[in-house]
Amino acid sequence: MLQPNIPETSQPRVVIVGGGFGGIMLAKTLRKAPVQVVLLDRNNYHLFQPLLYQVATAGLEPDSIAFPLRGIFKRQKNFHFRMAEVLSVNTAGNILDTNIGPIRYDHLILATGSNTNFFGNKQIEQHAIGMKSLIEAVQIRNYVLKQFEESLLMTDETAIRQKLNFVMVGGGPTGVELAGAFAELREYILPKDYPELPVHLMEVYLIEAGPKVLAAMSEQSSEKTVRGLRKLGVKVLINTAVKDYDGQVLTLGNGEQIRSQSLLWSAGVKGVPIAGIAQDALIPNGRILVNEFNQVKGHTNVYAIGDAAQLANDERYPKGYPMVAQVATQQGKNLGNNIRRQLKGETMTAFKYKDLGSMATIGRHRAVAEFLGLKLGGYFAWIVWMVVHLLNLMGFRNKMVVFINWAYRYLTFDRGTRIIIKRGAANIVKLRQTIDSPSDVALNQS
Amino acid sequence: MLQPNIPETSQPRVVIVGGGFGGIMLAKTLRKAPVQVVLLDRNNYHLFQPLLYQVATAGLEPDSIAFPLRGIFKRQKNFHFRMAEVLSVNTAGNILDTNIGPIRYDHLILATGSNTNFFGNKQIEQHAIGMKSLIEAVQIRNYVLKQFEESLLMTDETAIRQKLNFVMVGGGPTGVELAGAFAELREYILPKDYPELPVHLMEVYLIEAGPKVLAAMSEQSSEKTVRGLRKLGVKVLINTAVKDYDGQVLTLGNGEQIRSQSLLWSAGVKGVPIAGIAQDALIPNGRILVNEFNQVKGHTNVYAIGDAAQLANDERYPKGYPMVAQVATQQGKNLGNNIRRQLKGETMTAFKYKDLGSMATIGRHRAVAEFLGLKLGGYFAWIVWMVVHLLNLMGFRNKMVVFINWAYRYLTFDRGTRIIIKRGAANIVKLRQTIDSPSDVALNQS
Repeated sequence: MLQPNIPETSQPRVVIVGGGFGGIMLAKTLRKAPVQVVLLDRNNYHLFQPLLYQVATAGLEPDSIAFPLRGIFKRQKNFHFRMAEVLSVNTAGNILDTNIGPIRYDHLILATGSNTNFFGNKQIEQHAIGMKSLIEAVQIRNYVLKQFEESLLMTDETAIRQKLNFVMVGGGPTGVELAGAFAELREYILPKDYPELPVHLMEVYLIEAGPKVLAAMSEQSSEKTVRGLRKLGVKVLINTAVKDYDGQVLTLGNGEQIRSQSLLWSAGVKGVPIAGIAQDALIPNGRILVNEFNQVKGHTNVYAIGDAAQLANDERYPKGYPMVAQVATQQGKNLGNNIRRQLKGETMTAFKYKDLGSMATIGRHRAVAEFLGLKLGGYFAWIVWMVVHLLNLMGFRNKMVVFINWAYRYLTFDRGTRIIIKRGAANIVKLRQTIDSPSDVALNQS
Repeated sequence: MLQPNIPETSQPRVVIVGGGFGGIMLAKTLRKAPVQVVLLDRNNYHLFQPLLYQVATAGLEPDSIAFPLRGIFKRQKNFHFRMAEVLSVNTAGNILDTNIGPIRYDHLILATGSNTNFFGNKQIEQHAIGMKSLIEAVQIRNYVLKQFEESLLMTDETAIRQKLNFVMVGGGPTGVELAGAFAELREYILPKDYPELPVHLMEVYLIEAGPKVLAAMSEQSSEKTVRGLRKLGVKVLINTAVKDYDGQVLTLGNGEQIRSQSLLWSAGVKGVPIAGIAQDALIPNGRILVNEFNQVKGHTNVYAIGDAAQLANDERYPKGYPMVAQVATQQGKNLGNNIRRQLKGETMTAFKYKDLGSMATIGRHRAVAEFLGLKLGGYFAWIVWMVVHLLNLMGFRNKMVVFINWAYRYLTFDRGTRIIIKRGAANIVKLRQTIDSPSDVALNQS
């Protein structure tokens, strides 16, 4: 009964799967091109993932880091959005099969991003908590606050420790920033909100399998980060593998055990391949092999960009580009320009990555940032971190709301959004009855 | 295994059930009293219900109208909060039975508020959508946006109408404000977000069984409201009963039918009685009979305030006080002072309601307000409405975020929070495994 209802025009149709950094930039670059742009996403919003950890730790409201996709493109005449899930692609027939029906394409771009990678460890996958989507971040916030509430109802010290210990696995920016935020919750929020709670029973761990945290940054910044985290009371373990986790006890490579009901896994991501892409175009971590024009191996009108794409045309990145927003954005822009060139009969330009730098925040007044050959740390890096994130956040309203939250938190040492949103079983049952499409309304409770 | 862990002191213990307007004010009034204050709520936040309709219509983020209860009382030394559900009360033994274990009390105050009242119509109850909690409002937002998305995937006009028609039942402030907000969605958001959609197929209805909307206000304000709503394109039907609703088609008292998948019911509320309160203290709508000191019939140390309480000591309100925030707040304050007087051996003061006025907003630049004998309408009433709501909203951060949202919406005709938060099945399964208490984490998806 449902059908995509996308008008047929004489212009070639460019179908983009995924409204992340890459997909958005690509669609924008095609703004005035003589093509019809169709963007598909399972959500109706663009998510600013770099601040997801602040939603998970009650620092920002979920709505402030999400921007409605229709809003972004409301003035772009050649643009059509459909909320849909892609089921498979038929590259021979140039047809994309989705849950709202088949969609024909002339150019297809897979900008499907990545998901949490547990590297095949099923036991950990079953019990660890991932954080890639907005709803996952909200669930983590609910869960963490509930752990605090429940630890107040216990008397056994071991049980309380188990509830209050939080373990971050993976020393990338996400792990570092999460660990810093948890340490700040312990420092500023718990003593005020739970004066009766023995806060000293709470430990925050950051566990990294490799020899340093923030592997993409310099030795200097990495060491500064570890020092900063330790000053905040985070237990940083490097060269430490996580062997097993059953939801209650974590076993390290050396056999040591840590009691915790909360293992947040940010040790890796992987591509999310779509059925119909030839196996020989996929590498083991799910990324799709593309050439320097982001064309998928064996195709000229099927492309992949961002986290989904595996491109190794730069000797600095022999294993492919890092799975970060910068790469996705630049590939989106390059591909958009290449499609415009194709239409004019011009030759395409090979993708060339320009690393604008990287940064991570550790906590109040503490961050590290590297760009233009500079290595910054401390207060100034922290200001730079905030300015860069605010400027890159989409939409004036979101910028203002995030700014207000940060200013409030800075001045009061408080976090405004520590609410547990739950319940509502009554409505959800009703609301589901009238849903026609396979995907469904959420935020419910069972 | 869980237990309330509330310290035993020599001071009398005042247990308040419910962190709404009444419960909060009562706890604050007891700030310096020689008592131990225990507040119980199933949620960890206070909800500013008057703005709930703006969350449901994508005008405000849920977090901006919720304030963590622990945050409100962080400087009140005699205060203890526990997130808990009350199961029953044993008034003979002065014990409250909850899902975190039994809690002893010296004074018990039921400030449990109200829930949607379908007046026994099971068929309507099953299909209509209520809006009393934060999660319900978020669910409505998700649902409404999804109706818009899905109507784009249809070609049959009747099916599209069914998706785009929104029916508000109940002409009180909630129904009026919801209807106005839906009309504004149609006016400002739909044409921009869904240029392909035949917006003229969308209708907004406001149905009231009685002879006027805003029954608590003057004839003049009521008529002004109806004119304002009609100018916005809302179909206002008064003296019109809703006979039946099956989730797709609504049947009116006169046999006429309206096709709609969305019937929002705000035609009435009822008390939520707690097991253990004697039947002869309950009236049919679930409110608890209290005397002028808010003491529950047959008790001296069990009280009810706000929506939960039925008190008819004022000839202006022969059927009891209206179920509004003002009454709850004033009863909370009066009871707090009476408990203090009891402790000093003084006599208690009978509750006396001071109506500070009432107001409702119809849309941009349009509202009605009555206070101090004044009857305001139009632009000025709209400004008054906004100022009063902002001032009454708890917390500086919330005030700022709401203000930013309103200013943004006013200037851009846009609504920033129209995102559909869904999915996350992966995490929720894991997160539920470690939950010990019967209530559970939510915002999940099945």
